[in-house]
Amino acid sequence: MTLISADGTILRMPRSEPTALTLLRRTHEAQVVELLRRLGALSRAELGRRTGLSRTALSSITGSLIGRGVVVTAPAAPARGTRGRGRPVDLLRLNPAIGRCAGVDLGRGRVRAVVSNAAHEIIGSESRPYPRRTSWEERTAIALELLDTVLGGGSDGLEGIGIGLYGPVGPATERASAAVRLFGERYGVPVLVDNNTRLAALAEAVHGAGAGTRHSVYVRLSHGVGGGLVVDGRLLRGASGAAGEIGHVPADPRGPRCHCGGRGCLELYASLPAVEAAGGLGDDAAVERAGRLTGQVLAGLCNTLDPELIVVGGELAGCGERLLAPLEAELRARALPAVRQGLRITAERLGDSGGALGAIALVRQESPAPRLARQPYPAAAGTGCTGPVVSG
Amino acid sequence: MTLISADGTILRMPRSEPTALTLLRRTHEAQVVELLRRLGALSRAELGRRTGLSRTALSSITGSLIGRGVVVTAPAAPARGTRGRGRPVDLLRLNPAIGRCAGVDLGRGRVRAVVSNAAHEIIGSESRPYPRRTSWEERTAIALELLDTVLGGGSDGLEGIGIGLYGPVGPATERASAAVRLFGERYGVPVLVDNNTRLAALAEAVHGAGAGTRHSVYVRLSHGVGGGLVVDGRLLRGASGAAGEIGHVPADPRGPRCHCGGRGCLELYASLPAVEAAGGLGDDAAVERAGRLTGQVLAGLCNTLDPELIVVGGELAGCGERLLAPLEAELRARALPAVRQGLRITAERLGDSGGALGAIALVRQESPAPRLARQPYPAAAGTGCTGPVVSG
Ligand SMILES: [Zn+2]
Ligand SMILES: [Zn+2]
Repeated sequence: MTLISADGTILRMPRSEPTALTLLRRTHEAQVVELLRRLGALSRAELGRRTGLSRTALSSITGSLIGRGVVVTAPAAPARGTRGRGRPVDLLRLNPAIGRCAGVDLGRGRVRAVVSNAAHEIIGSESRPYPRRTSWEERTAIALELLDTVLGGGSDGLEGIGIGLYGPVGPATERASAAVRLFGERYGVPVLVDNNTRLAALAEAVHGAGAGTRHSVYVRLSHGVGGGLVVDGRLLRGASGAAGEIGHVPADPRGPRCHCGGRGCLELYASLPAVEAAGGLGDDAAVERAGRLTGQVLAGLCNTLDPELIVVGGELAGCGERLLAPLEAELRARALPAVRQGLRITAERLGDSGGALGAIALVRQESPAPRLARQPYPAAAGTGCTGPVVSG
Repeated sequence: MTLISADGTILRMPRSEPTALTLLRRTHEAQVVELLRRLGALSRAELGRRTGLSRTALSSITGSLIGRGVVVTAPAAPARGTRGRGRPVDLLRLNPAIGRCAGVDLGRGRVRAVVSNAAHEIIGSESRPYPRRTSWEERTAIALELLDTVLGGGSDGLEGIGIGLYGPVGPATERASAAVRLFGERYGVPVLVDNNTRLAALAEAVHGAGAGTRHSVYVRLSHGVGGGLVVDGRLLRGASGAAGEIGHVPADPRGPRCHCGGRGCLELYASLPAVEAAGGLGDDAAVERAGRLTGQVLAGLCNTLDPELIVVGGELAGCGERLLAPLEAELRARALPAVRQGLRITAERLGDSGGALGAIALVRQESPAPRLARQPYPAAAGTGCTGPVVSG
């Protein structure tokens, strides 16, 4: 298409490039799709407010998206007390049959695969335990089998796969590259990999205890002590991919040597084995000490990071107030007034599913070009994602 | 302007809105300006690579920018060994006479004002001490006077002002709002305010010891112990604006009470008064202890944040290796292998000017709509900046 301005000038566009108007319309469409993708279901009025598009422009865009099956409409539940007065308002949402995302958590003792649709509904979830001595090849084979099951035998409408791995995951982690290759070749979609505890931090921040927060710290008290930091809504990975290792901050700088090389690391006092050695999860004093020292380490971290929320997860979080009360007391006694004032401390909500749900959240957050928004156009050059390890 | 497509359809654009082509061209212009603004001077080839624009499109855009005086050309120094062979390559840069940015550091004991031009050259810098008992009104009056002097009597071509304040600076800090009002009304440009130690962290990350890094930690050992975190190239502020308070991370959890309410905070061992009480800056043991405990606290922080660089500033950094060697030894002994592997530790480069230079860096980084790119167009609605405290 050649554009001619009203004054007669011919504005040539190179044949292979889209016209300016097409580009602008694409941008607006992508905005609408991105909002529905992030927020689930919205009314036309809400979409108008959030995009700033005129009613006419928005109506043309939503009309086209509905026509192409990318967006569907559903009547909203009537507001209380309106009882039939006024027209029912239609909500727009992404077609649940497209825009699927998969999350796979390859944990130490089990694999979990979860698939959600574009409307953010979980449409399948399976988990299978394996013995700790299971090889990497066997683990990934089980994961692929499980994902096939949850996907229902096909990768139609699949946007991407997020994978959580136990242990450190950085740009140079071999298992990460192997997973990207394996899953990317099998399903032909972008694959993003991260540490599964860090992904649980993201899942809690997006869907769980921290929904609506921008800055949160997740600490997981389990066989080891790990965690994840969400800064300004995004996962902090660090220079080598090791960010979040709260377990190796010293709780007692003169304490015993830790396997990491440090001294008196939090993991030596607040992990499951440490609490079991000190009396077990039923022993109030052992749990109290774990909570207190976790609170102490978190105080230092909070004074530097100034988060709005601490989410405590892992088996120890199951001790409830016996753990959380001393943790919170110690944290509040040691944190700066400005820092503790707005700070909330809570147990995790998503439990065992956090890693897989966080893997999905990672794909939805970092995969920059959702296929469903691209669908009616020729494929864009390159499918670069911003995650740590990626294939297209 | 009404656009008519080649097939005769009239594509109406609302009168008050710019056309799609204008919008697209603005986006491309803004890209070019933003690249030159961030990177200083670039060849046309380099601009083409970085923007992805065709040679024709780029030439039309740079031609217009040069015509409007936004961009100027200058021959690049000939490469070694080419001695006159080939055409000399012109570099494009922003016109140094426009796009000025001011940084003001309202410190405890002195004010500093620095002005840089669009080519990132410092074109003026002044500082003036004041007694510690000087009132807020007097301090700001001195700052305004100093800034007038450095600006050379006019705010022509001024893009914005960054202001560094001592003490905690968050969204609710009254002094910050007062400074925004005062400087905003006087100069009629966007004003961004942040804590001056945090701004020094940004300055070191952008122009100083950390130039080229994405993740760095700045620690300032002075009358107090403070710092700043740069995560993915941006300053971390935290939920209440308190992020970076490294001085109140415990170095000895069972140590004496600190004024902050905590126990055994780093500031009790590694601040200037603490070292002076323990023997002074000339006393090797006192300096060594400060370095060692700073390294210990940084190890915990690094294990969670995984930065690539630690920058040490403040009066104690002047002790050089007597401080840095024990700091680095302790840090490396306690940090996780993955974390310490890529980690570099160095003294600050910008010294006393860090706060003011960081204030400029903040304006260049966070002020989203540089005036010089907007110049030929009607003023955009709103001048919202993303900094913590802002006025237009
Ligand atoms: Zn350790
Ligand atoms: Zn303190």
